[in-house]
Amino acid sequence: MQPYAAGLADILLARERLAPTLSPTPVLRSRGIDRLAGRELHFKCEPFQRGGSFKIRGALNAVLGLSPDQASRGVVTHSSGNFAAALAIAAGIRGIPAFVVMPEDAPAVKVAAVREYGGEVIFCHRSQRAATAEAVRQRTGAAFLHPYDQPAVIAGQGTLLLELLEQAPALDAVIAPVGGGGLVSGIALAAREAAPQLRVYAAEPLGADDAARSKAAGQRLPQEDPRTLADGLRTALGEHTWPVVRDLVSEVVTVSEEEIVTAMRMIWERLKVVTEPSGAVALAAAMKLPPQARRVGVVLSGGNVELASLPF
Amino acid sequence: MQPYAAGLADILLARERLAPTLSPTPVLRSRGIDRLAGRELHFKCEPFQRGGSFKIRGALNAVLGLSPDQASRGVVTHSSGNFAAALAIAAGIRGIPAFVVMPEDAPAVKVAAVREYGGEVIFCHRSQRAATAEAVRQRTGAAFLHPYDQPAVIAGQGTLLLELLEQAPALDAVIAPVGGGGLVSGIALAAREAAPQLRVYAAEPLGADDAARSKAAGQRLPQEDPRTLADGLRTALGEHTWPVVRDLVSEVVTVSEEEIVTAMRMIWERLKVVTEPSGAVALAAAMKLPPQARRVGVVLSGGNVELASLPF
Repeated sequence: MQPYAAGLADILLARERLAPTLSPTPVLRSRGIDRLAGRELHFKCEPFQRGGSFKIRGALNAVLGLSPDQASRGVVTHSSGNFAAALAIAAGIRGIPAFVVMPEDAPAVKVAAVREYGGEVIFCHRSQRAATAEAVRQRTGAAFLHPYDQPAVIAGQGTLLLELLEQAPALDAVIAPVGGGGLVSGIALAAREAAPQLRVYAAEPLGADDAARSKAAGQRLPQEDPRTLADGLRTALGEHTWPVVRDLVSEVVTVSEEEIVTAMRMIWERLKVVTEPSGAVALAAAMKLPPQARRVGVVLSGGNVELASLPF
Repeated sequence: MQPYAAGLADILLARERLAPTLSPTPVLRSRGIDRLAGRELHFKCEPFQRGGSFKIRGALNAVLGLSPDQASRGVVTHSSGNFAAALAIAAGIRGIPAFVVMPEDAPAVKVAAVREYGGEVIFCHRSQRAATAEAVRQRTGAAFLHPYDQPAVIAGQGTLLLELLEQAPALDAVIAPVGGGGLVSGIALAAREAAPQLRVYAAEPLGADDAARSKAAGQRLPQEDPRTLADGLRTALGEHTWPVVRDLVSEVVTVSEEEIVTAMRMIWERLKVVTEPSGAVALAAAMKLPPQARRVGVVLSGGNVELASLPF
């Protein structure tokens, strides 16, 4: 029995499914940032991905993996962030309905994005998201897709690493942000079989450090009262992502809010990529990796940010 | 006798010279922007270029083209913008001194960039730039390189089009901003022989429209009192660039300040590329091209902008 959510075969299948629709995102370098980091950094730029973040990889893999019968009834999720838009895009590609449960206080720009991509938004109180999604599922027969704690979603996120290995060979390490853990789990599962020598690091805000605490305690701990600018990383590890983070991630590196803003500014000023705070967390942590990590893949996870409310 | 500053052979030679040091910049797409523009736009992203703009192409080609004897005495230019940093980088690559004459009121961040790249900054009053550069030339024996009105610089800028043609085949048109005209001249000269069917457009702020007025008048007119946010485009056409703009550029499309800011916002929000106002002018103009221009290469020329003073 396969002990983890996905294996290389699942990730290779995901890659085949995504290939006709998603082009590989560019890998960028900056000599200036390399000097400051004291190592060679290869930035995998998911802000340029469809929908502005890596989330489309998992969403589209999950949507394309549904049976025709199941797909015809659509998909449903609850998310106020990048997965909401990604699922709307993915459902649009397959030509099926997407029902997206969002909290009443979700940012207007996120709601507008889901609608622009053709998704149907259902509002509810923040505490009622899971129950509301379940009610929509029962009413419509739509398939529920979890934003991160779902094997097909994790396998989709793993495609990022396969691309990166082709674009930047001979990396020692890769570092990706961890919130719910879908991205870093997919990467770690891909690395396990495709690049076993590669060290996989997770980067986490100190203000939402359930992954670091869980790893230290050897058991999955909840995320209570997260406080970080990195709104995409306020969630907690799930049933599927926790064992991968526990066993296959070398270390969870935590960073302060100040380190996140410094990294975000560096990415905007030197790399010229519009990156959201969550997307900058991996660079903040990459600055503190052990010196053996000389050639490092750094995942900039997304770029959906309100220009009117930048932290600088 | 060759009537223009450079031919395809010069541009191919430039490409060979630059290849070991400069990687091709990515070409990005946005379905959202395509919908708004009513056509297919392929963005050539020079903010990701070394030094943050296309200027390194021309600077490095000119520096590498100097004889060993001439090179040993260094290079000198006057510029308060992207060419200043580019020349410092280019000189550093060849291991020779770069003297950069800058006005006393040049932005501190631009001065710091030149120094970070190893250039020596000489300050003068804004009106004394040419005379000061000439004095430096006489004192040091350094070769004077003009920021745009110089054949080797124009040939270097032309390499952008050769890259773009490989990355986005079957374009109908390409549009690039025009200030002094080095970039659009290089592109037009490359297109003339490498892609004669391609229409080359120039994009210019209404507040600094010497190229549009010159083309309408059939003679080179000066640029007096330019007023535009697009600080890289306040210069006037030169002796070498004017004949190319006159004969080989289909049209100079002018845009308002409001159109520039709208385009800049679109690039940041949807394409996720940090682009300076001058860099956004080509998109502003691309929105207004005739409908026959269906597949258009849009040159985002640079991304060096102060985050503290964004127009939105």
